[in-house]
Amino acid sequence: MDMAFLTSYPVLNNDLTLLPTLQALKLVVFDVDGVLTDGRLLYTEHGETLKRFNVKDGVAMKLLPQWGVQVAVITAKDSAPLRQRMKELKVVHFYPGCHNKAAAFNELIAQLGITSAEAAYVGDDVIDLQVMPNVGVALCPADAHILVQRYCHLVLNKSAGEGVAREVADMVLASRMPLEQAYELAQKPEFEK
Amino acid sequence: MDMAFLTSYPVLNNDLTLLPTLQALKLVVFDVDGVLTDGRLLYTEHGETLKRFNVKDGVAMKLLPQWGVQVAVITAKDSAPLRQRMKELKVVHFYPGCHNKAAAFNELIAQLGITSAEAAYVGDDVIDLQVMPNVGVALCPADAHILVQRYCHLVLNKSAGEGVAREVADMVLASRMPLEQAYELAQKPEFEK
Amino acid sequence: MDMAFLTSYPVLNNDLTLLPTLQALKLVVFDVDGVLTDGRLLYTEHGETLKRFNVKDGVAMKLLPQWGVQVAVITAKDSAPLRQRMKELKVVHFYPGCHNKAAAFNELIAQLGITSAEAAYVGDDVIDLQVMPNVGVALCPADAHILVQRYCHLVLNKSAGEGVAREVADMVLASRMPLEQAYELAQKPEFEK
Amino acid sequence: MDMAFLTSYPVLNNDLTLLPTLQALKLVVFDVDGVLTDGRLLYTEHGETLKRFNVKDGVAMKLLPQWGVQVAVITAKDSAPLRQRMKELKVVHFYPGCHNKAAAFNELIAQLGITSAEAAYVGDDVIDLQVMPNVGVALCPADAHILVQRYCHLVLNKSAGEGVAREVADMVLASRMPLEQAYELAQKPEFEK
Repeated sequence: MDMAFLTSYPVLNNDLTLLPTLQALKLVVFDVDGVLTDGRLLYTEHGETLKRFNVKDGVAMKLLPQWGVQVAVITAKDSAPLRQRMKELKVVHFYPGCHNKAAAFNELIAQLGITSAEAAYVGDDVIDLQVMPNVGVALCPADAHILVQRYCHLVLNKSAGEGVAREVADMVLASRMPLEQAYELAQKPEFEK
Repeated sequence: MDMAFLTSYPVLNNDLTLLPTLQALKLVVFDVDGVLTDGRLLYTEHGETLKRFNVKDGVAMKLLPQWGVQVAVITAKDSAPLRQRMKELKVVHFYPGCHNKAAAFNELIAQLGITSAEAAYVGDDVIDLQVMPNVGVALCPADAHILVQRYCHLVLNKSAGEGVAREVADMVLASRMPLEQAYELAQKPEFEK
Repeated sequence: MDMAFLTSYPVLNNDLTLLPTLQALKLVVFDVDGVLTDGRLLYTEHGETLKRFNVKDGVAMKLLPQWGVQVAVITAKDSAPLRQRMKELKVVHFYPGCHNKAAAFNELIAQLGITSAEAAYVGDDVIDLQVMPNVGVALCPADAHILVQRYCHLVLNKSAGEGVAREVADMVLASRMPLEQAYELAQKPEFEK
Repeated sequence: MDMAFLTSYPVLNNDLTLLPTLQALKLVVFDVDGVLTDGRLLYTEHGETLKRFNVKDGVAMKLLPQWGVQVAVITAKDSAPLRQRMKELKVVHFYPGCHNKAAAFNELIAQLGITSAEAAYVGDDVIDLQVMPNVGVALCPADAHILVQRYCHLVLNKSAGEGVAREVADMVLASRMPLEQAYELAQKPEFEK
C-alpha cells in the first residue's frame, strides 16, 4: 500500500470494506463526458468533431491492464475523435453510443467471468445510476451531479477532465503497492509506444 | 420537494414568494453565451464556427419539458454550431439572432398562453435586462455582469458554462419533488435518444 | 459615480489622483493575448488559426465610444480570427502585428489630438511596458506578469480572458455615472447590430 | 538577484544549495503536455491536430538563450501544431516523439559540453522521472503527478499551461539579477520578431 497517497481519502477510514474491495478489483469502467473530458461539448456545424482528453488519463488506461485490472469505456455518445483516442489507448472494452449502460455492463462482466463486486464504475450523471448502485466501488468526479454524489462510495478529488481516470488508477494501485513500484513500468521507453 | 438540494439557496428563506413561483413555472428561457456557454467566443477567420456547450445542460433541456416546463432559447447571436446543438436537444422555442428579446419573449408567452409570472429567465448581461425585470423568476450565473446580479431574484452557484441550465432544472424540479423521482426518466435507455 | 461598483477597488482611496484621471480619459488601449484572450494560443499546423474572445468584452468595446471614450487595440501578433473579431466590433484604431507599441501609441494620440495622460493602457506582459509608464492610467489583469503588476496603477479583479475589457469599461463608466445609466444604450435592440 | 520575486519560494531558504545551482544553470529542458500545455489533448478524427500554448511561455523561451541559458524541449508526443510552435519560437534543441528521454537528455548535454548538474528539467509525469533525479534542478507544475512532486526540488506556483516556462525563466533570471534588468531586452521592438 501507499499510505501517503491513501490518506487523502478519509472515507477509507470510515468505510472499512472499501479498501479490500479496491484491492480485489478486476475491472474499472469509465464514462466519457464529464469524466474523461470536462463535460464541455465542442460543436461545429457538423456536431461534435473535437474532444478534449487529459494526457495523464492516457497513462492510467494503459497502466491498469498491466497490473491485471481491465479498463472499459461505456458512453451514450459517439464521435470520430472519441474513437480515435480509444484506439490509440488500445481500450479493448469500448461501448460507444450505448444507451443501455446496465445491459452493456452485465454483458461485459459475464464475458470477463467476474462479479459486479469486482468492478468499479466512474460516472458523473444520472444515466450512470443504471449501473453504479450495483458495483463494488462507485466513484465520481468532484463536480459530478448531486444525485450521483449521493450514491457514490467515494467522491474523487479531481473534477471532470482534470485527470479523473489517473486519480482512480493511483487509488487502485496505491491500495496494493507503493506508487513508486506501480509506475516502474510507465517510466520505460517502450511504455509510450 | 428536495430539501437537501434547496438548502443550498438561502435566498429561498428570505424571499418567501420565490419557492411558490418556482413551483408554478411553465417556461424557462435561456440566453446562450455566458449562460449555456462560458462566454468565450471561438473565432476562426470565418467568425464563430465552434461553440462549447455543457453535456449536463443537455439533460436539463430534455428533462424539463417531460415535467411540463417548456424550454426556450433566445440569443442575439447565431451560428451553425448553435443551431446544430439546439436541433439535437429538440429545443422547439428557439430564437437565434434575436436583438429584441422583449418582443420575442412576449410573443412566446402569448403563443403558450401563459403569464410572464409563470416564466423564469436565465441571462448574464445587460441585454437580458430587457426581459428579466418582468418575469416570475430572474436567474443569472455566478459570474454574470454586476448589473444583472443586482436585478436577479437569485444568483446561481455555477458560473457560465459549468452547467447553469442543469442547476436551474435541478432547482425547478427540487421545488416540486425529490430529485430521485425527478430523474427516474433520465435513467432510462430511451431518454438519451 | 457608481459607488457600489467603485468600492471594489481600494486603490482608488489610496491614490486620490486616479479617480479624476479615470473621469478624464478619452482613450483606452488594449493588448490582445493575455488581456482580451486568456493568453492560450491555439495552434494548428498552420499556426494560430483560432482565437478565444469573451462575449462580455464585445459589449465594452462597442459601448465606450458611445460615451466619448475611444477604443484602440495594439498587438504584436496578427491572425485572421483576430482581424475578423475586430471587424465585427468595429474597432477603428487597430494595430495588428505591431512590434513598436510605443511608436503606435504616440502616433495614435497625436492623431486623436489628446495627451498621454488622457489615455489608459491595459497590458499583461513586459512588451507593454514600452507604453504603460507613460499613460494616465496603467491597468493589468490579475494574472499579468509580475513586472507589469509592479508598474500598474491598478491590478484588475479579473484574469486574462475573463472579461478584462468589460471590467475596465465598467470602471471608466462608473467613475462618471451610475452603471444603470451607462448601460441604457446597451439594452436597446439596435445596440447589438 | 530579485529578492521580491524569490521570496515566493520558501524552499530556497530550506535548501541552501538550490539558489547557487539556479545561478549556474546552462540549460533548461521542458516537457510539453502538462507543462507547456494544460495537458488537455484536443482530438479530431485525425488525432491531435490542435494544441494550446501559453503566450507568456513564448517570451521565456526566446529570452533565456539571450542570457546564456539554452532551452530544450523533449516530448514523447509529436504533432504538426507542436512543430509549428517550436519553429516560431526558434527552439533549437527539440526532440519530438522521443520515448527514451534519458538517452535524449544525455546526448544533449554531451553535445553542449555541460554536466547534468548544470541542467534543469521541468516535467509533470512519471516518464519524466527517467531524467529528473539526475539533474541539478528538477521542477514541476503545481498540478504534476504526485510521484513527480515527491521527487522534485521545487513545485512551481503555476499549474500546467498557466505559464510554467515563464515562471521557470523568471526564477532562473531572478537568481542572477533584478527582473527589470532581465527583461530590458524583451521590451525592445526587435525582440518580438
